[in-house]
Amino acid sequence: MEPGQTSRAVAFEGDLRVIDRARPVPGADEALIRLRLGGICNTDLELIQGYKNFSGVLGHEFVGDVYEGPADWMGRRVVGEINVSCGVCDMCRRDMSTHCRQRRILGMLNYDGAFADYFRLVVRNLHPVPEAIPDEAAVFAEPLAAACQILESAHLRPSDRVIMLGAGKLGMLGAQVLRLTGCDLAVVVRRAQQADLLTRWGIPAVERSALPDGQADVVVDCTGDASGFSDALALVRPRGTVVLKSTYTGIPQADLTRVVVQEVRVVGSRCGPMETVLRLLEQRLVDVEPLIEARYTLDEARHALEHAARPGAMKILLGP
Amino acid sequence: MEPGQTSRAVAFEGDLRVIDRARPVPGADEALIRLRLGGICNTDLELIQGYKNFSGVLGHEFVGDVYEGPADWMGRRVVGEINVSCGVCDMCRRDMSTHCRQRRILGMLNYDGAFADYFRLVVRNLHPVPEAIPDEAAVFAEPLAAACQILESAHLRPSDRVIMLGAGKLGMLGAQVLRLTGCDLAVVVRRAQQADLLTRWGIPAVERSALPDGQADVVVDCTGDASGFSDALALVRPRGTVVLKSTYTGIPQADLTRVVVQEVRVVGSRCGPMETVLRLLEQRLVDVEPLIEARYTLDEARHALEHAARPGAMKILLGP
Repeated sequence: MEPGQTSRAVAFEGDLRVIDRARPVPGADEALIRLRLGGICNTDLELIQGYKNFSGVLGHEFVGDVYEGPADWMGRRVVGEINVSCGVCDMCRRDMSTHCRQRRILGMLNYDGAFADYFRLVVRNLHPVPEAIPDEAAVFAEPLAAACQILESAHLRPSDRVIMLGAGKLGMLGAQVLRLTGCDLAVVVRRAQQADLLTRWGIPAVERSALPDGQADVVVDCTGDASGFSDALALVRPRGTVVLKSTYTGIPQADLTRVVVQEVRVVGSRCGPMETVLRLLEQRLVDVEPLIEARYTLDEARHALEHAARPGAMKILLGP
Repeated sequence: MEPGQTSRAVAFEGDLRVIDRARPVPGADEALIRLRLGGICNTDLELIQGYKNFSGVLGHEFVGDVYEGPADWMGRRVVGEINVSCGVCDMCRRDMSTHCRQRRILGMLNYDGAFADYFRLVVRNLHPVPEAIPDEAAVFAEPLAAACQILESAHLRPSDRVIMLGAGKLGMLGAQVLRLTGCDLAVVVRRAQQADLLTRWGIPAVERSALPDGQADVVVDCTGDASGFSDALALVRPRGTVVLKSTYTGIPQADLTRVVVQEVRVVGSRCGPMETVLRLLEQRLVDVEPLIEARYTLDEARHALEHAARPGAMKILLGP
């Protein structure tokens, strides 16, 4: 293989390794993208713990340059949606392509990921990044879209009392998006560092014990554990809404009787609208760069993932 | 005490007895009602098993005549809403009086129930029953209102594929109400008797195993057990709605990760609009009388409750 024709990739096949592989050849509907920056998500950490029996190249948060593909995309700086849909199933035809019945998922399901010098993605998933957005902000496009999906999943009114549970990477992005609705927002934190960041954005950081039960119009659970759901049910008012943003370990217990008696609305929420995110970032309505904790190269991927797994760690980036 | 001044009442205080008590004296905002017919609900069966540490007179499904009260209500045949609200708390002021923070509940919580010759209820909870509705239909007003609440809790579209899980007393009322939306409805049954009744109404009765997963727009769980919720999650399509209608024993396990990944909407649903019910019954859009399985007198209350507790039992009525 000629020099320049190989590409490093962070692969997991029972264990984590940085491999050299031939530069992927894009299919007819795909572009080849050269990585500028990748971001490590909690899902990456779960995948290398065995979640979904994942095997392949990791990475679904990225900003990169189109290196091969349709002429009008060549050289453009892009971010991308991670669900690779079939376009023909009932979900795709009903404009719910993130729920495509045959979907593949970048770096998660039957589609090699973005933690590589070069990687493929279908062109229809790409979004050009406006010049005003630096790489260090654009790399947040995917998780910030997931945060925006909270507002697609539930109608938050400007007068609502809203509580965010969990002030990790996703909770911090969610809190910033929720703030834009003008709602009366409080974020439940466990660490001083989290409170400091929130204070910088003018968002009240509180302890769980300071909040009265049964008063919040909307509670968003970004904790990812069953106690988060039970806290959410306790905090929400009758006929209020609980938005679930993160996946749970195993099958947790849930007080469904309380859901019935209080007529609570529980809404799951996953991937979100990327065009929205690019508008928010371009207009500087969301401030993501303070969430960056460290930056590693692809060669240092193992250290990067170990760092990301530390309790309380914020965003860890991977660059070429 | 003079004859005619006492009133039998079905009381539970650790055990069930038919007592003779002085005829209650209505408060300034209350009417005294003479029972025409009462209906036994699964909640009554749970209360005498220890649910909510209930103590007092049972009964919240009734039709009766106003015997004492404001002049314009005297002699009127009425049904009544069961939540006795305070009128001043935040929920009452936000038109959510069924969620009043200080609510008492007829025959359930700090308010003696309707299984008695004479019982009290606040006048604002009463609804006059149109002449065309016989007692045997009017007595279903409360559970039928709970069934109508499904449509208050979720928007069912005429084109929706809808599955009702559970074909007990509440499921049968729910199925009839859902049918009126024109939706594509199927009811999962376990007994031939249930299938026969549904067939009479032109509603498809199916077995769980005949239904494909992930296709229903809306699934309503009237089973009251955790397997009902897990079936509902399996049957609903991505971004579909699960309506929970009945309470669960203990704190069941619930696959919240599936709620998140499929972006399912789970909605609890309790007491409903009684005026709606009276319209439906007057217009004979719902057929409740085939659900009556047996009728007992107040003196026979113990037998009546035992009968109601038999697996598969439909509605058991109590008359004076």
